[in-house]
Amino acid sequence: MSARQLAGSSFKESSSINPDFVKERTASSCDAKELAIIVGGGEHLHQRRKFVESLIKDNPHFNDWDRYHQDHTQIFEAAIRRHCEWVKIKQQNNLSVEEGNLIYSVFLNDLSFGIHDAMFVPTIRRLANDQQRSKWLPLAENYEILGSYAQTELGHGTYLNGLETTATFDQETQEFVLNTPTISSMKWWPGSLGVVVNHAVVLAQLIVNGQRIGPQAFLVQIRDRETHQPLPGCHPGDIGPKWGFNGATNGYLRLDHVRIPRDQMLSKYLEVTSSGQLVSHGNPKVTYGTMIEMRCNLVADSANLLNKAVTIAIRYSVARRQGTIDASQGEVQILDYQSQQDKLFPLLATSYCFSFVAQSLMQMYKSSESAIQQGDFSKLPELHALSCGLKALLGDVMSKGCNTCRFSCGGHGYMLASGLPWLYERGSVINTVEGEKSPIFLQTARSLVKILGNPQAANLSEGAFTQYLLRPVTLKWQPRVRGQVRNPDNVTGAFRHRAQRLVMRAADRVATLMKEGHSQARSWNESQVFLVQCAQAHVELYCVEVFFDKLSTLHDASKGNREALHRLALLFALHMIRTNTGDFSEDGFASREQLSWVNDEYFSLLKELRPDALSLVDGFDNSDFTLHSVLGCFDGNVYQRLYESTKLEPKNQKVVPDVFHKYLGPFMKGQSKL
Amino acid sequence: MSARQLAGSSFKESSSINPDFVKERTASSCDAKELAIIVGGGEHLHQRRKFVESLIKDNPHFNDWDRYHQDHTQIFEAAIRRHCEWVKIKQQNNLSVEEGNLIYSVFLNDLSFGIHDAMFVPTIRRLANDQQRSKWLPLAENYEILGSYAQTELGHGTYLNGLETTATFDQETQEFVLNTPTISSMKWWPGSLGVVVNHAVVLAQLIVNGQRIGPQAFLVQIRDRETHQPLPGCHPGDIGPKWGFNGATNGYLRLDHVRIPRDQMLSKYLEVTSSGQLVSHGNPKVTYGTMIEMRCNLVADSANLLNKAVTIAIRYSVARRQGTIDASQGEVQILDYQSQQDKLFPLLATSYCFSFVAQSLMQMYKSSESAIQQGDFSKLPELHALSCGLKALLGDVMSKGCNTCRFSCGGHGYMLASGLPWLYERGSVINTVEGEKSPIFLQTARSLVKILGNPQAANLSEGAFTQYLLRPVTLKWQPRVRGQVRNPDNVTGAFRHRAQRLVMRAADRVATLMKEGHSQARSWNESQVFLVQCAQAHVELYCVEVFFDKLSTLHDASKGNREALHRLALLFALHMIRTNTGDFSEDGFASREQLSWVNDEYFSLLKELRPDALSLVDGFDNSDFTLHSVLGCFDGNVYQRLYESTKLEPKNQKVVPDVFHKYLGPFMKGQSKL
Repeated sequence: MSARQLAGSSFKESSSINPDFVKERTASSCDAKELAIIVGGGEHLHQRRKFVESLIKDNPHFNDWDRYHQDHTQIFEAAIRRHCEWVKIKQQNNLSVEEGNLIYSVFLNDLSFGIHDAMFVPTIRRLANDQQRSKWLPLAENYEILGSYAQTELGHGTYLNGLETTATFDQETQEFVLNTPTISSMKWWPGSLGVVVNHAVVLAQLIVNGQRIGPQAFLVQIRDRETHQPLPGCHPGDIGPKWGFNGATNGYLRLDHVRIPRDQMLSKYLEVTSSGQLVSHGNPKVTYGTMIEMRCNLVADSANLLNKAVTIAIRYSVARRQGTIDASQGEVQILDYQSQQDKLFPLLATSYCFSFVAQSLMQMYKSSESAIQQGDFSKLPELHALSCGLKALLGDVMSKGCNTCRFSCGGHGYMLASGLPWLYERGSVINTVEGEKSPIFLQTARSLVKILGNPQAANLSEGAFTQYLLRPVTLKWQPRVRGQVRNPDNVTGAFRHRAQRLVMRAADRVATLMKEGHSQARSWNESQVFLVQCAQAHVELYCVEVFFDKLSTLHDASKGNREALHRLALLFALHMIRTNTGDFSEDGFASREQLSWVNDEYFSLLKELRPDALSLVDGFDNSDFTLHSVLGCFDGNVYQRLYESTKLEPKNQKVVPDVFHKYLGPFMKGQSKL
Repeated sequence: MSARQLAGSSFKESSSINPDFVKERTASSCDAKELAIIVGGGEHLHQRRKFVESLIKDNPHFNDWDRYHQDHTQIFEAAIRRHCEWVKIKQQNNLSVEEGNLIYSVFLNDLSFGIHDAMFVPTIRRLANDQQRSKWLPLAENYEILGSYAQTELGHGTYLNGLETTATFDQETQEFVLNTPTISSMKWWPGSLGVVVNHAVVLAQLIVNGQRIGPQAFLVQIRDRETHQPLPGCHPGDIGPKWGFNGATNGYLRLDHVRIPRDQMLSKYLEVTSSGQLVSHGNPKVTYGTMIEMRCNLVADSANLLNKAVTIAIRYSVARRQGTIDASQGEVQILDYQSQQDKLFPLLATSYCFSFVAQSLMQMYKSSESAIQQGDFSKLPELHALSCGLKALLGDVMSKGCNTCRFSCGGHGYMLASGLPWLYERGSVINTVEGEKSPIFLQTARSLVKILGNPQAANLSEGAFTQYLLRPVTLKWQPRVRGQVRNPDNVTGAFRHRAQRLVMRAADRVATLMKEGHSQARSWNESQVFLVQCAQAHVELYCVEVFFDKLSTLHDASKGNREALHRLALLFALHMIRTNTGDFSEDGFASREQLSWVNDEYFSLLKELRPDALSLVDGFDNSDFTLHSVLGCFDGNVYQRLYESTKLEPKNQKVVPDVFHKYLGPFMKGQSKL
């Protein structure tokens, strides 16, 4: 049997379903199809995503059944072929940009030059003036040129002011001279920069008349369009293998006094005139939009990856039997163990929550963008703070969650065929791109402390989420009997109190240190741990509120689904209280007794959720094609699929492997010829 | 320049040291060379480890400079060559078994048939009777045969009673018939089983006269020694790619009524006579030894891997400058950020602690083994419980710690060349082999609850660690002023109280549920989360005590080292209190004020440790050869090494890559021929 045949036969939806799966699906009171629409952002979006999946599912370029066996070079080439094919499909089906992006939620392998679509084109759209747009956009949108977005340097990531690349205006020739003077100033990490693209938007410190103006974006051609030879002074290359995304060929670029015409500085907001004058246009704040949009996408990616890991882990835990609880009943499904539920159900709840959070944040982004087009920038600060904090939180929780899912599948989770290492590796990058969690949580914290310090200046709108910071402090948590810890108002009240108190505490600490004579910067640094903590509490409050708000909109959903989602929302919140008791109790807010109620209800919820667990992961509607996991398939035939997957293994293609003749045979006879 | 030349030039210790590194090493009051001996388990062991490293360091088979570029097949072949070579080196240098094993702490890539040395040979030693030993041991010890240890099945891991493979005694032919009747009964995971070995110790359910006796070990030949063809009825294969250890070729084995002579059941403790009678010899408890030894080794591996990740992360954080604290002082080393210290210093402290814990556990194991040879099994229960819990704790903390180290290095930590993904992947397996953390923490918990339930029966020796469980409960934590939270007795007292209370709480919960009418098994299951928590508290107490005990033996160490280690021990403990405040306060033991002192002292310790951080990781004495990381080298030249590492990248070998001619060129002209 050839590997390809096998893939065809073994990875398609099987007709025989694991009897445990049939039983659990039948017994559950949840309706997975309805859930799929709720969690997928509504009927329309759900259908469009299914449509995109249907466009690629049977396309041989997207049949990457051998994903876990390819070496880095094969991965790279396959990603290029796939992206070329995808462009063709998009054009043939007239997909909008937004529809085109849906592919990233149904196909979790690389398209080669994603950076071109995600950053190069949008940056031109945002930062180019009309003349530049009309010249460059058609070329880029039709893929006549391919571009990268080159900001990060070997020595500098999130700290833009530290960028070392310079762009010096030469008035005589009406050119900018781009230069990376040191090793650490080389551009490093930009997707596709090394060997794929022939253009790049390069961020560089603009220098005019010897004066350093600050970072600006320049359009630089780096390779010849006909021959793909690097242009003089351009030294691009690949940065080497990474933990994942090896189809995306992140690159480096040294620039040695490369000259570009004056009109290739993207000049919508700042222009250098022929005489070297600086002329500003409009509000450059609008450029934050790119970074915020990127963060919103990363938040959505986090939600998306986590629900896949949880689907695999819960399906496996339904299929796997190991050990006994009551010996008379034989071996139990491992999902019946409390410790397994304790690992996975909070992540299941988190996955639902994060999907709703991603939707909510994207709405907020869109509404802010349209306000900005009316000249109203008032929503930007809150959106900036929230998108930073959520990106940090969701990236972190998702990455750790993938890890937990992997462990919860025991040894088989360590096999690449489980799909879990793949998800972890892809997920793990989200904590890193656009800033590691500490610095970006600190951006959120900065805005919160600022509001507290000067509410007038912050000028919060009526409906601003951060309004809660300015309300009177509640001293005691409300619940008087155990059942009241399930009351949504009590739950969100607890998170609101905690966030408010921790923001105040962090602000106090900074203020105290300053009073003791430390500089503001030093005081800020010595309070980082508290600041990060308050930012996290703030966005966790947001998550809890979004989850309960979502529930309140689901009047038309089935009773089973509404009840299950309500349990998940509670579990999500109570789990966080349980694992951060100090936050809720160290000021005397929650009593010891109330916390014990939280514990009791938490364990009750685990039991209540058990019968619906499988249907709840079905609700994420991940196809076998998307999951790419022998442990996570819809039919639950984990052992058969594991066994079948070994037929792709090169070492199994010969009964007696070559290494026996070359090494092992002589070695065992004491005749090794190494 | 060829890749090999490059590796020679770029990965050797460089003569020019990063000036920040020179400055910090000079200013530190620690003596890294002395630390290396302390943390390495004494002068003798330290020297032997260096000696083992010297035997392989310049050997071309161990020069795996291209480790991060190899595909699975190359990794597999290299591991075989390397192991053959290693056997030669061991023989030439007359290394003892123990000395031979030191390689695993200085060389972190695979030897192919490690299972032969680690499990196959020791199992024969332990479980074979004299006759069997004299026949099989010489063959195995001289590598005339190669063997695996086949216990785990596709459907069964830690739950031995569930193993499905059968070994049925056929009195007529005086043979055992080994059989794997189902897909899930296939042996699955044993190292080298698939394509490398020709023998295996197979665990199977012994059936005699139709009666199922329980799991026993059988010596089965699976491939012909001359031709390496699988023997009739034996179907071995490779299980496919994993997240790491792809040199170790884990395998599967189907057995279809394979017959072996009666004398190939390993019969030191149980024998089947020719007439089908069962005869026991000696105390089969001794067989626990193998699993305990394995766990002790995993504990040592955890300590070893974590200190490498921490070395890389802290060195990088000294080399990397990013952003400002006081703008006038330019960009700061990222290790100066409180949030970075908060991530890494607890892990630095943990690394030291775990090294001492691994040493202490190994001593306990050795002393128990020699007692057992005198017929004294009294130390076994405590050792069993402790080795389970420590394996679970250290594996978990190490794996999460590697993860944190990876994040703390930002984007560059995501590159394989950083060495961090490699460490994580290798470390992540420790949580899985020999049982995932929940089931094995539960084994610890079982023994603790048992002691509490019936102290007489437990018959604890005078010096038993678990004695503390039976002492009177302390109600209030001692410290009266802030400084007293640094007192070692107060610190260990807090952990003792917490462990005792949580064990009692878990036991109470089980008892309460039983009183409510649930079966013991059901009550146990519904208490798992509490039981796991108490087991963890128990072994964390052990860690804290071992760390402080170790300090009390270091009279001869330099003042600088003693002070720094004392700070680390405190940091280790206070960090755990800080992050588990509920455990220490929910019963009113530690007051809010005391916990705030813990916080204050924690932040003071971060600052106090900062000047010694680099020397403290130098103290782990990891050579560049061992670390295999461009970010973690002794000389701190991170950017230069990152850049040089790209010269190994296949995609950089041609200025214009083939993919341009094949795909990208035609695509950009709209002439794609996919």
